[in-house]
Amino acid sequence: MKYPNNIKKSYKKEINYKNRGMDLENLINEACKYYLEHDEAVIYKKPTPIGVVDVDYKNGAVIHKAYFKEPSTLDYNGIYKGKYVEFDAKECASKTSFPLSNIHLHQIKHIENIIRHGGIAFLIISINGGYYLFKGSDLLQFIQNNDRKSIPYSLIQEIGYPLTYNYNIGIDYLKGIEEAYKGVGYFEDTKD
Amino acid sequence: MKYPNNIKKSYKKEINYKNRGMDLENLINEACKYYLEHDEAVIYKKPTPIGVVDVDYKNGAVIHKAYFKEPSTLDYNGIYKGKYVEFDAKECASKTSFPLSNIHLHQIKHIENIIRHGGIAFLIISINGGYYLFKGSDLLQFIQNNDRKSIPYSLIQEIGYPLTYNYNIGIDYLKGIEEAYKGVGYFEDTKD
Repeated sequence: MKYPNNIKKSYKKEINYKNRGMDLENLINEACKYYLEHDEAVIYKKPTPIGVVDVDYKNGAVIHKAYFKEPSTLDYNGIYKGKYVEFDAKECASKTSFPLSNIHLHQIKHIENIIRHGGIAFLIISINGGYYLFKGSDLLQFIQNNDRKSIPYSLIQEIGYPLTYNYNIGIDYLKGIEEAYKGVGYFEDTKD
Repeated sequence: MKYPNNIKKSYKKEINYKNRGMDLENLINEACKYYLEHDEAVIYKKPTPIGVVDVDYKNGAVIHKAYFKEPSTLDYNGIYKGKYVEFDAKECASKTSFPLSNIHLHQIKHIENIIRHGGIAFLIISINGGYYLFKGSDLLQFIQNNDRKSIPYSLIQEIGYPLTYNYNIGIDYLKGIEEAYKGVGYFEDTKD
């Protein structure tokens, strides 16, 4: 929204939008914590892969030089109702489509692997102010059948599963899993 | 082995033994890679948790200050025959017992969580030149029923599952899983 003299007025809502990248991750982290505390699922964000170059062990192992590495798996994984679950959180700045360049090639290979071995893999896409669970199988199918380099927003709305924000939980993605993977979960009563 | 004039002769085997800490992890990493390439399991080592304090974004995001964080989960996790698997690799310097101080309190809680939700959790303990799969359920039971602060080597030999080293694979821990968790794996033929 532009005001006279090109002054942009900062509404709180605007600020939130600017930090959307942070917000999505936080809202998912909140949910992971909630699910853990309520014993509904055990899902953690993996640590960011970092290559350590130089460590000062004299002063309590302070890392002095390191760099971020490209992830080859997805950011979150864990177990829900006995099922292996892995997913990634993706902020989408475009309002019309989700660019596939957001996903690395070995992440796509990894999604294939997870699914083939009986796990659940998906993306949580934040686009146009909404949150969607987009199944890994749908992603792979889209890539296989299209030359497009982005998934249209309309398709995300059509075949994705809208996720709801809940004040106590954050983004309630387990509800989305239940909807997207009907019949998931056998919750074996193992002793091991 | 000491030689005249205190000169230590470096045999290759000696070097290997000295670096056992490194070796165990490498041997497990090798196995993970082998299993992945042969499509037997999808199990990765999680990145080391690092708290980043200072990043120089001007020169390509070089981290200038960071520190190692205490892990709250185990080092390796993934999926095998549709089953959630998580474990940690533990080098044991003592030849008589494995000190429980090697495992953080929230890691024990995490093992409980994994098992309760239908996953497999265990330790791979390297002790006295041998490798053992020690089930998470056995670990929890030991802690509950003992005041001892370490697990005797004799008990590890008795109820642990010996893991074999294989030149092509590394430490063949899937074989150990098969033995320790008989009947594991349903490998669902899901499309998702």
